[in-house]
Amino acid sequence: MTEAQSPEPEAQRPLSEAIATTVAEVSGLDTDAVSTARQRQDSLTKPRGSLGVLEDISVQLSGLAGSCPPPLPDKATIAVFAADHGVHAQGVTPWPQEVTAQMVGNFLAGGAVINAIAAEVNARVVIIDIGVAAELDDHPMLLAHKVRAGTADMTETAAMSRAEVIQAVETGISVARRLVSDGAQCLVTGDMGIANTTASAALIAVFTGTDPALVTGRGTGIDTATLDTKVEVIRRALALHQPDPGDPIGVLSAVGGLEHAGLTGFLLGAAALRIPVILDGVIAAAAALCAHALAADSVAAMIAGHRSTEPGSQIALQHLGLRALVDLDLRLGEGSGGALALPLVRSAARVLREVASFDSAGVVDKEQHQ
Amino acid sequence: MTEAQSPEPEAQRPLSEAIATTVAEVSGLDTDAVSTARQRQDSLTKPRGSLGVLEDISVQLSGLAGSCPPPLPDKATIAVFAADHGVHAQGVTPWPQEVTAQMVGNFLAGGAVINAIAAEVNARVVIIDIGVAAELDDHPMLLAHKVRAGTADMTETAAMSRAEVIQAVETGISVARRLVSDGAQCLVTGDMGIANTTASAALIAVFTGTDPALVTGRGTGIDTATLDTKVEVIRRALALHQPDPGDPIGVLSAVGGLEHAGLTGFLLGAAALRIPVILDGVIAAAAALCAHALAADSVAAMIAGHRSTEPGSQIALQHLGLRALVDLDLRLGEGSGGALALPLVRSAARVLREVASFDSAGVVDKEQHQ
Repeated sequence: MTEAQSPEPEAQRPLSEAIATTVAEVSGLDTDAVSTARQRQDSLTKPRGSLGVLEDISVQLSGLAGSCPPPLPDKATIAVFAADHGVHAQGVTPWPQEVTAQMVGNFLAGGAVINAIAAEVNARVVIIDIGVAAELDDHPMLLAHKVRAGTADMTETAAMSRAEVIQAVETGISVARRLVSDGAQCLVTGDMGIANTTASAALIAVFTGTDPALVTGRGTGIDTATLDTKVEVIRRALALHQPDPGDPIGVLSAVGGLEHAGLTGFLLGAAALRIPVILDGVIAAAAALCAHALAADSVAAMIAGHRSTEPGSQIALQHLGLRALVDLDLRLGEGSGGALALPLVRSAARVLREVASFDSAGVVDKEQHQ
Repeated sequence: MTEAQSPEPEAQRPLSEAIATTVAEVSGLDTDAVSTARQRQDSLTKPRGSLGVLEDISVQLSGLAGSCPPPLPDKATIAVFAADHGVHAQGVTPWPQEVTAQMVGNFLAGGAVINAIAAEVNARVVIIDIGVAAELDDHPMLLAHKVRAGTADMTETAAMSRAEVIQAVETGISVARRLVSDGAQCLVTGDMGIANTTASAALIAVFTGTDPALVTGRGTGIDTATLDTKVEVIRRALALHQPDPGDPIGVLSAVGGLEHAGLTGFLLGAAALRIPVILDGVIAAAAALCAHALAADSVAAMIAGHRSTEPGSQIALQHLGLRALVDLDLRLGEGSGGALALPLVRSAARVLREVASFDSAGVVDKEQHQ
């Protein structure tokens, strides 16, 4: 049992051993390394603060690694958690559910956007079947960890059982551990699941205490009537389950998706290993709220890759105190926005590692000069 | 003589043969390739429009190349135009003027931020001495094209003669041509010059018709008293010269910098060769206004790499109809923000080249399904 659990309702609902152990391993940034990194940034041959947000990222990477400069996160892996959603039956999206499995096939064949971007930014892609509602053939890029073949319809019953949530979270933890032991120095979240912006909006509404209408968006591009349906569906589900944000496993069970539960574990695993993890869009932001609810310090490992057009994304990131790196009106998912942020994160680390100081380069420092 | 010149005052002030020839070669996007690229984007296995601004960039790259998909701009060169400014004498910055030459030395030694970022994004860096107020030793990365050893003080006299502007613009054109003949498939603007945000603000004020107080910023980080001085200096220079935005060579002569003139030619050269050119910050944005004034269609080749914290940057980009890709509170220059945008531009091209269509991947298309 961790301290975080004891005063909360969660205390009566023990986490599994694997999750509790991981949560206990999560801690915040190393303050000495943070301080050293800030000082080093200020000694480099550039006006102080002139690299803006990249300076903050470099300091975070140092504090996470506990060393300044931090390691260069050259080897990166994008983990695309794929799952289906029972709430699809409520007409929240015009895309048929079988597109989830079809897109997984597209990822494995190398034909999707995430494959193209991953090739550009030199990252590995793995797909985790954590809940696709179809049988998937074996493939070297596919990690077969199906917990169940899609969630149940959250408007009728809990999306999944607490035991299934725990299994999916444990899967996410073990995926993070495996990818890091395979050599990944940086992880990126990805997701695929038709209707998963509906579950994301429900999770964000619960954890941030925001009205569903304010956190629900058009996802991959729905019309106003479907958007109205989507908000109404979320309202009904929340009214049915009355999820308690102090019980994150219960929230995931009521209105989450299997990929949200898997990503929650993935984020906790990355944080426990002190490996930076770049969040993609609104699905990752929803999972990040779950991870934060289980272990607040897990945010120390998180970097917001991009600002999705989904309104819930920004509300969730604000709640977590994260600023998105890429802001290009993306709303694709798959990990695309997170992957696009990789060169920015690597550049931030590289500046702290490679740039000369005023002293070493023989450049006059304004601050000394004045 | 091009059409653009005939009705303008510029008609009485002929450009050099080299500049006029380049201006005549500049034309807008190929509308057939633009249309093909839009259709192709809509056929790819992703929701239509879900890649936001990257879709627009991919379409621009196609229209510029006159082919869809466009070439992948793997080989990129960052051209850092370095020069000094006579207006430095007016106390517009706390940095001593010799920092320009010292930072050029830092670039050549590989110790600056632009070197670190260029290494990360796999780009070549060249430095062009177009007007540094110091003797610089030969170096393989340095192109020696000094037009004069810094400009004159714009508050007392013209910053440079028209002949010097023309020589600097021609230099920029020839640098673009040389880098492209060396293999560059994409160019990035860079700059180094203590006090060059003052000249940039003056140019932006003239070309956009904006009050100097609204386009002048803190540059590398000046205090409020220095900012007030900077605005007043620009007001005095504009009152003295009364520059005519219809005569861009005259504007550059009155209040520009040698790097602005060089970058103007560089942008025109890239546009004439139909090679994409990524703008860095406010110095590039000011030069882009000059290039636009000489050849409006040159904007077709330009991609705004980032949104600088300098207020003039955003005003200039709006005037040109460009949206910045990276928005991370950067205010360094050197080409840093432009270089950081390279992976985004390459990803945009790669998506159009490599992603499967709904038909080829066997994925159900929502638009067909409905």
